[in-house]
Amino acid sequence: MLDETYSKLLVKSGAKLALIVLDGLGDIATREQGYLTPLEAARTPHLDMLSSDSAQGRMIPVAPGITPGSGPGHLALFGYDPLEFQVGRGVIEALGLGVTLGGGDVAVRGNFCSLDANGLVTDRRAGRIPTERCEALCAILTDKIKQIGDIKITIQAGKEHRFVVVFRGEGLEGPLTDTDPGREGQPIATAEPADPKSAEQKKTAKVVADFYRLALPLLKSQHPANGFLLRGIAHQPRIPTIEERYGLKAAAIAVYPMYKGLSQLVGMKKVEGPQTIAEQFQKYLELYDDYDFFFIHYKYTDKAGEDGNFDAKVKAIEDFDAALPILLQKKPEVIAITGDHSTPCAVKGHSWHPQPVLLHSPISGWDKLDRFTETGSNLGSLGIFEAKYLMRLMQANGRMFAKFGA
Amino acid sequence: MLDETYSKLLVKSGAKLALIVLDGLGDIATREQGYLTPLEAARTPHLDMLSSDSAQGRMIPVAPGITPGSGPGHLALFGYDPLEFQVGRGVIEALGLGVTLGGGDVAVRGNFCSLDANGLVTDRRAGRIPTERCEALCAILTDKIKQIGDIKITIQAGKEHRFVVVFRGEGLEGPLTDTDPGREGQPIATAEPADPKSAEQKKTAKVVADFYRLALPLLKSQHPANGFLLRGIAHQPRIPTIEERYGLKAAAIAVYPMYKGLSQLVGMKKVEGPQTIAEQFQKYLELYDDYDFFFIHYKYTDKAGEDGNFDAKVKAIEDFDAALPILLQKKPEVIAITGDHSTPCAVKGHSWHPQPVLLHSPISGWDKLDRFTETGSNLGSLGIFEAKYLMRLMQANGRMFAKFGA
Repeated sequence: MLDETYSKLLVKSGAKLALIVLDGLGDIATREQGYLTPLEAARTPHLDMLSSDSAQGRMIPVAPGITPGSGPGHLALFGYDPLEFQVGRGVIEALGLGVTLGGGDVAVRGNFCSLDANGLVTDRRAGRIPTERCEALCAILTDKIKQIGDIKITIQAGKEHRFVVVFRGEGLEGPLTDTDPGREGQPIATAEPADPKSAEQKKTAKVVADFYRLALPLLKSQHPANGFLLRGIAHQPRIPTIEERYGLKAAAIAVYPMYKGLSQLVGMKKVEGPQTIAEQFQKYLELYDDYDFFFIHYKYTDKAGEDGNFDAKVKAIEDFDAALPILLQKKPEVIAITGDHSTPCAVKGHSWHPQPVLLHSPISGWDKLDRFTETGSNLGSLGIFEAKYLMRLMQANGRMFAKFGA
Repeated sequence: MLDETYSKLLVKSGAKLALIVLDGLGDIATREQGYLTPLEAARTPHLDMLSSDSAQGRMIPVAPGITPGSGPGHLALFGYDPLEFQVGRGVIEALGLGVTLGGGDVAVRGNFCSLDANGLVTDRRAGRIPTERCEALCAILTDKIKQIGDIKITIQAGKEHRFVVVFRGEGLEGPLTDTDPGREGQPIATAEPADPKSAEQKKTAKVVADFYRLALPLLKSQHPANGFLLRGIAHQPRIPTIEERYGLKAAAIAVYPMYKGLSQLVGMKKVEGPQTIAEQFQKYLELYDDYDFFFIHYKYTDKAGEDGNFDAKVKAIEDFDAALPILLQKKPEVIAITGDHSTPCAVKGHSWHPQPVLLHSPISGWDKLDRFTETGSNLGSLGIFEAKYLMRLMQANGRMFAKFGA
């Protein structure tokens, strides 16, 4: 409903928007950290400068207390309600392995497993075979199984025993039940349609059965990886693109496959090349005239948080800050700097703690905050709000909405 | 929908949660009070200490501007949407009188009244007979009317002319119309089903009519209390228990019947015995191993607020603070300290003003606030949020949710 209202109010303004995501940026002040967050401890002269002309606030990624994965975290930042637009685990896994996915594709998580002479599962993880072995097995399968009927098959090796299969073609639909029996001593289960009346799910089940029929013989001599189990057999529902929703041509300047993939799901152009944040900002300068919306993703704050490494997180923030002036050489009308969620060092993982956000535009106003920190952003004019609204605030700051009502 | 999402993410962590409610805690700073709230004026060394390691915020009990009664105030604190899960007035009245209620029970508010020879109501409150008289009349009714068909009857005297009747048995349902005609000079009205097609409501109406048929003759010689009026004839819908919703074994350490009753409605174990907050905390220590969730209710802040007695409210807070170290002898993983609503001294009653909340856990973070006050909590990282989410934040701080999405 609200999305419709926003759509009706859309106007072209020609403003450029930059959404800059320091992954897992948010943190908490604990005794062990001298009651400072990494943002508070870091030396950030350029962020400080920007803060002196920006609005601030904090964002709830999904809902109070809910810790998001990268999928919902980013969909919310892109302005999509993460409870409405869900991305399957197989899809996320595939995106993380660099597989390009589109709406309707069925992406499935696979495990190599060990089977005995009777076809019973003796090890659901095939003794955690080395990654190189997994790659070799996936190459064998890829070589022999490229298509089943009108359905294209893509197989991509992951870490150890893990891989991803993507089924692409008309009329596929999930969910199907897992073929993983859940415990050893059982045979591989059959993938059954969740809705037995769905012709699409039946077609998908048949393709999966055919895939097993073709693939198992190829693995016969590959003990301990002479079988495989499939989980999360679901299609990726089509998500309206950024261009459809906001009328904006969008480019994703990310380094890691997962974030390139997530941005492709919403129709962003994937930009290849840059490896460092300085190179990413440089790329932004080059592409400035070609796009309206830039998603720039920086991974290292999250990595440090996951490791519980406070100093590394401080360093990641300082490295980011040092590169920031490159972006400012051609300042877009609207800059948002935030995280997709918090990854507090004390938690060593994603968390629900609202992430701080800085919103800068000629009409963002200033909240009398001289720095960009969690504690400071608590006092900002944006308040604490759901992350899905950030995009709307960016649009508003870019003067992209007409007045509602007279 | 969101509740379902929370349910799906539930994981066992073994953490202990303590929800400590200073009833009516929130207040406002007025000129008459030297612009201090009782929390600001009170000496609270232990709350101060806890504040230096906690997150803070303010909570909207129901919705902006809505003043809650104790029922919705507490249901929200227990994590139930108070607009979705409503508790009837008769139920609240019955709970306040110490009557144990379960889902499906029909609890009704009664007034003794005066009838003339023609059966017309001459005084809807029976001249506000003394409480002892009311108790004597209820004893007469209880003695003679224990059951109607398969329906058990419980009658409990209240203050002056007030009492409560509970109808318990299969197939009862409200609402029925009141038998109170609303003004003198009218006969006692008949309780009619709100939905004439409901067999359950018809059964309930018949039971009420039978109750009148049996009870009125017993009161014939008891003028001025020779009749009675019934209002709010409704059943208590079953509410999923704390254990069903959160997988937590819950104990209620409350002194007043109303709060014991409210916590029983959501399946908490009612703990009897303690009379002072020190004894309540002591009881918590004793029960530490037996429960996952502790609701500890402290009444005296609300009482002082209702009386408009600023000094008494300050004293109630200081008494609470003095006992707090007992709880901290076995610190639960998560502590929330708050009110169920505000009862500002200047209002002399419940109010809608958001109540301050302090949330303490190893991963709550610190908001750089040295005290726990209304003004301070405005600056906290929890922001201003609906009280029904407090439970979700407590669960998150207890690491009771898996990640949402991948």
